[in-house]
Amino acid sequence: MSRPNSQDRELRERAEAVIPGGMYGHQSTRLLPDDYPQFFSRAKGARLWDADGNELLDFMCAYGPNLLGYADDAIDNAYVDRMRQGDTMTGPTGLIVELAEAFTAMVTHADWAIFCKNGGDATLIALMTARAHTRRKTVVLAKGAYHGAAPWCATRPFGVTTEDKANQVFCDYNDVASLEAAVAAAGDDLAAIFAAPMKHDAFVDQAAPNPAYARRARELCDATGALLVVDDVRAGLRIARDCSWSELGVQPDLSSWGKCFANGHPISALLGSNKAKRAASQIFTTGSFWYQAAPMAAALATLKRVRETPYLEHIQGLGERLRDGLAERASAAGIGFRQTGPVTMPLFQFDEDPDLRRGFFWSSQMLSRGVYVHPWHNMFLCAAMTVADIDQALNAAEASFKALKGSLGSLEPVEKMSFLLA
Amino acid sequence: MSRPNSQDRELRERAEAVIPGGMYGHQSTRLLPDDYPQFFSRAKGARLWDADGNELLDFMCAYGPNLLGYADDAIDNAYVDRMRQGDTMTGPTGLIVELAEAFTAMVTHADWAIFCKNGGDATLIALMTARAHTRRKTVVLAKGAYHGAAPWCATRPFGVTTEDKANQVFCDYNDVASLEAAVAAAGDDLAAIFAAPMKHDAFVDQAAPNPAYARRARELCDATGALLVVDDVRAGLRIARDCSWSELGVQPDLSSWGKCFANGHPISALLGSNKAKRAASQIFTTGSFWYQAAPMAAALATLKRVRETPYLEHIQGLGERLRDGLAERASAAGIGFRQTGPVTMPLFQFDEDPDLRRGFFWSSQMLSRGVYVHPWHNMFLCAAMTVADIDQALNAAEASFKALKGSLGSLEPVEKMSFLLA
Repeated sequence: MSRPNSQDRELRERAEAVIPGGMYGHQSTRLLPDDYPQFFSRAKGARLWDADGNELLDFMCAYGPNLLGYADDAIDNAYVDRMRQGDTMTGPTGLIVELAEAFTAMVTHADWAIFCKNGGDATLIALMTARAHTRRKTVVLAKGAYHGAAPWCATRPFGVTTEDKANQVFCDYNDVASLEAAVAAAGDDLAAIFAAPMKHDAFVDQAAPNPAYARRARELCDATGALLVVDDVRAGLRIARDCSWSELGVQPDLSSWGKCFANGHPISALLGSNKAKRAASQIFTTGSFWYQAAPMAAALATLKRVRETPYLEHIQGLGERLRDGLAERASAAGIGFRQTGPVTMPLFQFDEDPDLRRGFFWSSQMLSRGVYVHPWHNMFLCAAMTVADIDQALNAAEASFKALKGSLGSLEPVEKMSFLLA
Repeated sequence: MSRPNSQDRELRERAEAVIPGGMYGHQSTRLLPDDYPQFFSRAKGARLWDADGNELLDFMCAYGPNLLGYADDAIDNAYVDRMRQGDTMTGPTGLIVELAEAFTAMVTHADWAIFCKNGGDATLIALMTARAHTRRKTVVLAKGAYHGAAPWCATRPFGVTTEDKANQVFCDYNDVASLEAAVAAAGDDLAAIFAAPMKHDAFVDQAAPNPAYARRARELCDATGALLVVDDVRAGLRIARDCSWSELGVQPDLSSWGKCFANGHPISALLGSNKAKRAASQIFTTGSFWYQAAPMAAALATLKRVRETPYLEHIQGLGERLRDGLAERASAAGIGFRQTGPVTMPLFQFDEDPDLRRGFFWSSQMLSRGVYVHPWHNMFLCAAMTVADIDQALNAAEASFKALKGSLGSLEPVEKMSFLLA
């Protein structure tokens, strides 16, 4: 545990002075083990270097955006070439049309696209489009699903009003009866059913979508005239080269995309079917940088790689190897260890670990062996990973499981996670 | 009027198929003269080339982001150098701290910063921070002021609910009595007064801030415990090297920034004083690309140029030359022509022009002479402009005023702007 960290400590101290809470949002390390670095200096392929130069095999992939490898030369060259000719201008380039054509050709349900910056922009435009289309207000959501940090879908109460959260009915993910009850509660005011492509909530076991749930969501939308929205911001392109629910044979009316379709360059999208096109043209939605040409060039290069290479089969194969190998090593060490979610987006949990003391200890052990895993959020694989990388992670895991086994009786409570016990 | 436009026409046709309304948001040309290009191919310095290769001296500057010149090599090199080392990663780099330090050192009221992507992210975080700080809900806004396209501040009704617009009281900009009445109407629930740094609403005469109005806003916030927010997304760095209201001696608690502080690279910011820091640390706000290192490197390079060069005095001087020269030429042609707003962000209007037929005709004439002006939105000057550029614009204007004078009796109504007559 003697990783150098003086640079990180110094930056944290300076950050305390000029950034609220020292860091905001999902990349704050406030809820990670104390030895996790807050600041990074470099990234290439599947690897990160923290501010002190410690090399890490990174299973977070920037919380998703790194799909094909950090600092991918071909994609970054596409970005730079376009940027040098003009990027944010007084209007878009033809790339916005090319990208809309390429993306809608890939995604079965999609006839049109609107490009934006945040994943939350795309989910908000979906909500507005559904309300404009139906002239109704109520949206059905699954409890605990993350659709962004804007007030309408915020998970913390601070700065959020009751009116921000109006016109929402919640159901349990994958529970058909609960979904039906929520739709019934919406009465004649149902504008949309929002669906995560799978249960990928933080802190809990992940769950694949129940096909009956997905089909029922589609039927209920068809019966009521509401729009079905699949929020693929997090999972998009790690499940399918299409909307993630296409695997179930269920096509939404709208799907939101973000994070990785330009391999880390800033762009998100709402894709929609022609049914919703008029409504999407009526709402006013925009942003200063939404017409930027360079991220669109990077997105075209990324989607080409997605179409033309077996990146998906590659990360699925690596994910299987990781899952099987970890299960074997946890079992050999006699540790109750759960792996849930798609193999390309795994979540790790330990049995009998309500305040995450096992998860924190094991994750810190992995970190000390050069592997960055997350103790309570789903992770992400990227196509720059190799079999050797997975084997490095498995070797680190074997030693970390053993260390955990030897320390089980002496683990301290994790004070910062005590809210989980409430 | 024989500018080539076949590429633009072809792209528009393709866009109709895959983009709602053919284009969305503020960069749609739906409300511009028919000969205005929708698509562009290149930009450098103060110039744009449209999709058909027509060169244009650009007075829109990407609606603000172009502060120092399109495709500025030094700033873009800073972007690229950082991008090649890692951009969107699993955490931020030390640049987030450096940028927060540099920005807060420049802006008098600011002690801390949160970086985001859209200008609307910054105004929304301001709203959430004010509500978290005061544990109250009501916000006072000026009628017609633009603070973004999110539902809470949307200007079109489609997809927006009454609840989205709850807890808002409106006043008339620059009207002290109206501001006082709005604050009184908020009762004991006032969370914030939002202020544009000047009246820069579309379609109407612009107006400088009344110092008494700004001071009264500050006093009312101090008296009630509410936070004063100056939304400097549009005007920031074109009025001052500080928050725009610093010119009036009025310091807000929060200021929102976007568009140009990385010279077109995608980043926005909320700056705040220590009074609001705890509340800002309590809200949860984030985005996939908010920690991107490359735009922060570009922002540091831009702010250095802002501090160390007379860019502001340069664009102010050019703006004066443009204003004086246009006034003289309009007067010589016997045309009633109004120029309002700061000289670095001018808005042009014609007298007796309720449906903008004069504005559209004159703007099209300017376009045909290689100068891109906007008939109803404020424009922007950039530091890459030269005296020769302004003189080119003045020569084009002289010919365009004459052409307008000769056509005054025969101008057709502008059908697409007839909503202005309602």
